[in-house]
Parts: sequence; structure tokens; C-alpha cells
Amino acid sequence: MTDLRDVLRVRPGDTRLADVDPRSTPGLPEGRAGKHAKQWSRDEVAAISQELAAYQEKLFASAKEGATTKRVLLLLQAMDCGGKDGTVRAVTQGLSPAGIKAVSFGPPTDEERSHDFLWRIRRALPGAGYVGVFNRSHYEDVLVVRVHNLVGEDVWSQRYDLINEFEAEQAADGLTIVKVMLHISRAEQKERLLARLDDPTKHWKYNPGDLTERSLWDEYQQAYEDALNRCSTAAAPWYVVPADRKWYRNWAVATLLRHAFADIDPQYPQPDFDVAAERAKLLEAD
Amino acid sequence: MTDLRDVLRVRPGDTRLADVDPRSTPGLPEGRAGKHAKQWSRDEVAAISQELAAYQEKLFASAKEGATTKRVLLLLQAMDCGGKDGTVRAVTQGLSPAGIKAVSFGPPTDEERSHDFLWRIRRALPGAGYVGVFNRSHYEDVLVVRVHNLVGEDVWSQRYDLINEFEAEQAADGLTIVKVMLHISRAEQKERLLARLDDPTKHWKYNPGDLTERSLWDEYQQAYEDALNRCSTAAAPWYVVPADRKWYRNWAVATLLRHAFADIDPQYPQPDFDVAAERAKLLEAD
Repeated sequence: MTDLRDVLRVRPGDTRLADVDPRSTPGLPEGRAGKHAKQWSRDEVAAISQELAAYQEKLFASAKEGATTKRVLLLLQAMDCGGKDGTVRAVTQGLSPAGIKAVSFGPPTDEERSHDFLWRIRRALPGAGYVGVFNRSHYEDVLVVRVHNLVGEDVWSQRYDLINEFEAEQAADGLTIVKVMLHISRAEQKERLLARLDDPTKHWKYNPGDLTERSLWDEYQQAYEDALNRCSTAAAPWYVVPADRKWYRNWAVATLLRHAFADIDPQYPQPDFDVAAERAKLLEAD
Repeated sequence: MTDLRDVLRVRPGDTRLADVDPRSTPGLPEGRAGKHAKQWSRDEVAAISQELAAYQEKLFASAKEGATTKRVLLLLQAMDCGGKDGTVRAVTQGLSPAGIKAVSFGPPTDEERSHDFLWRIRRALPGAGYVGVFNRSHYEDVLVVRVHNLVGEDVWSQRYDLINEFEAEQAADGLTIVKVMLHISRAEQKERLLARLDDPTKHWKYNPGDLTERSLWDEYQQAYEDALNRCSTAAAPWYVVPADRKWYRNWAVATLLRHAFADIDPQYPQPDFDVAAERAKLLEAD
């Protein structure tokens, strides 16, 4: 069976977003793109999520008493309406929230701005045994920051290397980083923005500034392309997931996470006490 | 229909834990305690969790732009093996982890110990729009701390009032606190400890210190009784949930949460922009 990571991984220097069709479904098992695709995906993602939950418990257990520093981070980036929230909800549906550290990054606060751009990121990393979820990330510092010239090119252009060093350092310390760009088309974004405007229960997700960002679509695609190509490393590869079809997107991200956990292969720790002796003590007392 | 809160709420001064049968199922709808109880509970809790998820989204949306300070905290206390983790997993199954702030409190760190006992609690509170989950809490400071004489009686005996003031202050600021003691029997705890010892995938949950705590059962029950009676206030009532039957426990806690959200009745915010104008702008551009 094909490893989906090989299908979706960004090869540095090689990836053109314009060449990736946001409606495509690369790596999908034979015969699954038909009319029952949505139902199949729902069932499959629920099943994968149960596997992830089992992995999560083992990872959590293995980190007890400082026995390992292993931890996982799902990092999601996308244009507005790219589906970050929906993806998180789908792939974590079976997991225990007690073992998840989910963080959304908005514009930095005054305090955050007074530090280097990775300061708030480091503070938000999951600890040993935990699964972190980043909704946006340090990549905003080479995306929105670059597109809006919030700092000079002399500053943002150095950040790719800083990011690579940071991620390599974390990976060496036990962090498995799954970096996913949810890739939607300009037309799909328009549909989803319209849907938000047409549904009063979705108005809160809409911001007039979204249209300004949309008018900068090409600049963002260019900034994404550079970030993907410059920061898809062996220690922390980027994956581009075509995301116009939500059912494919959920399946793809869940599958990438499953691969990551399978590589870690967390194990329940051996007891550091005498099981038989404890059993006897428990039974002999009241 | 009976409000489960009225059934399970602790009336200050009035509650004797010995009078609450941990195998009982108070407030259960007529005819649900029969042989299909487990399946019924599983389906019902899943359905309630979907309702909670809808409430959660509205709560989150309503807190955008600082429009409300409303937030929810589920606080769980129990003897070892009381089922805190399982309860959290069951009742949050449909919620988005992005809107949950789950915190487990262990023995305080050196830094935490250098502050007053509520310092780490305040830092862990959910922000506006979020659902917090406390696995253990500031009540440990009148439970384990009292039972093991970690501070003098002159210190812990003052904490009940401090806790009541703290919770009243938070409630006045928009925090809905659902305080639940999962009440298991001594015999059930023995069963569950044995199950942990007999299953290698559960060894990591066992700690030889658990038997020491078990030998202090009566002291803990007394400490719980005092905490329940002294800190079940109008601003933040305590609920005792009989917890030997996991299916009842999950249903009861999910139902208490549903009541809490129904009282808050969060609403999607009104748009602070001109919907028709935005729609026109979106359509006229590419």
C-alpha cells in the first residue's frame, strides 16, 4: 500500500501550488472517490480516530515519570475558509481532550511582540506524552507578515532558516511535527465565504478583512510556496493536502497522523513495582 | 421532568456520603435502569454531547470581540479509580478540543508552592467562550492536604471560606462552575485497582501509593463530606454523582453540563458589519 506521506510530501524546491489541483484526491484507495465517498470517509476517519486514541493513550502512558520526551504536533495552515477547524474536529473526535494541547495563533499581543517570533510558539508546544494542535503557527511570520510588509524583507527572509533550526532542534528532542497546508481553490473560498454570509449562524466567522486578504490571493500563494519549499525538511516535512473536498481532506490528515504515530510506535511502560506483591497486599486488606 | 440538579445537589450541612449509595441511579428517566441501560446510556450521552457541541460553538462565537465573559468549568473530584478520565472522555466526545481547556492538577511544583494555593488554579481557568475541565482542583488543598497533614489545621480550615470567595468572584465574572464528586464505593475501588493490576495496559495507571490512600478511606470520606457541605454554595453548588455504574455516571455528568449550558443559553452574535454590502463586494470581485 502506498504511504500517503510519499504522495503528499513537499519536495524542497520542487513544489508549485498551481500544479496541485485542490479538488484532487491523491493517494485515495482504489474505488473510493465514487458517490459513497462522503459516507466512506466519515466511517474511515472515525475508525482511524479510534486508532489515534489508542496511540494517544500509549504515548501519554509512556511519558509518565519522564520515561520519554516523545510528543506530537499537528500544525495546520490554510487560506481563510481552508477548513482548519473542521479538520481538527474530525481527526481528534476519538481522542481525550485531557491529552490534547490545542492552540490558535492570532495577531501577537504586545507582550508576544516584545519577544522573538518563536517565543510564543515555544511556550505553546506540547509536553512529553501530549498531542499538540496548532491552528496557524510561526509560519504566519513568513506569510501574513510578509504579504503585508509588517517587517522588512531583511527580517522575514531570515526566518526560514530560523524556523528550520527551531524545528530540527524540537524534532531531535522528541517532537514529531506533522505540518499540513490545507490547499483550497480561489473559487472554493468564494463559495465558503458566501455560505458564511448567507447563514446567520456563521456570521461570527466572517470578517470584512477577509476580502482584503482574498484580494492578495496571489501574493499569499507565492508566500506559501516559498515557505513550503524552504521549510520542508527531513526533520519536519510539509504536506500539501488538497482541501476543496472536505471528506478527502479529513481522511488525508487523519491518515498522515496515523503514519506519524505508527512511526513513534509508543508502548505501555513496564511497571516499576512488583505486580504480584501489590495484588497480594490489595487482597489481604479490607 | 425532574431537573437532575435538584436531585444531585448537595444541600449544605445536610449531606452524609454514607447515605448516598454509589450503585444508585437517582433521577434516571423511568424504565432506563434495565438490561439495556448501557446501550441506552451510550446513545444518550452521544446525543447530549452533540447538544453540548452546539452550545460550545455558540458560547465560543458569543465571546468573540470580548462581547461576553461567559465560560464554563467542569470540575471533577473523586477517590482513586473514581472515573474522572473516563467521564471527561465520554461527555466531551462531540466537542471541539480547540475550545476546551483541560487541566490535571498533581502535587504542586516548587513554583506553585511558593504562591497561595489558588494561584495555579486561577492561571488554569478557561477564558471567555471556553470550556474548562479540571481533573482534581483546589479541593485537593482541603482533601489530600488535610488527610496527610501537609499543612496545619489552622491553615486548611480557613480554605473553605477562601474557596467560596474565589468561586463566588469567578461566578460573578461569568464563570459557570459545575462541581462534581464521582462517588464510588470502597468495594468498587478494590475491583478497579485489581483490574489495573491484572491488565498490563493499565499498569501505568497504578501506583503503590494508591494502597496507602486506600487505607485512609474513612479520613478521605470525612474530608470530602466537609468540603461538600461547606462549599456547596448558590454560586457554585456541589453535585454528588453515584459512580459505581459508569453508564449512569456518564449520563448524569453529561446531563448536569447540559443544564448548565441551557441556563447560559449562549447566542450567536449579531454581525457588526453590513452583510448585504459584504455579499455584493464578494460577488463583484473575481
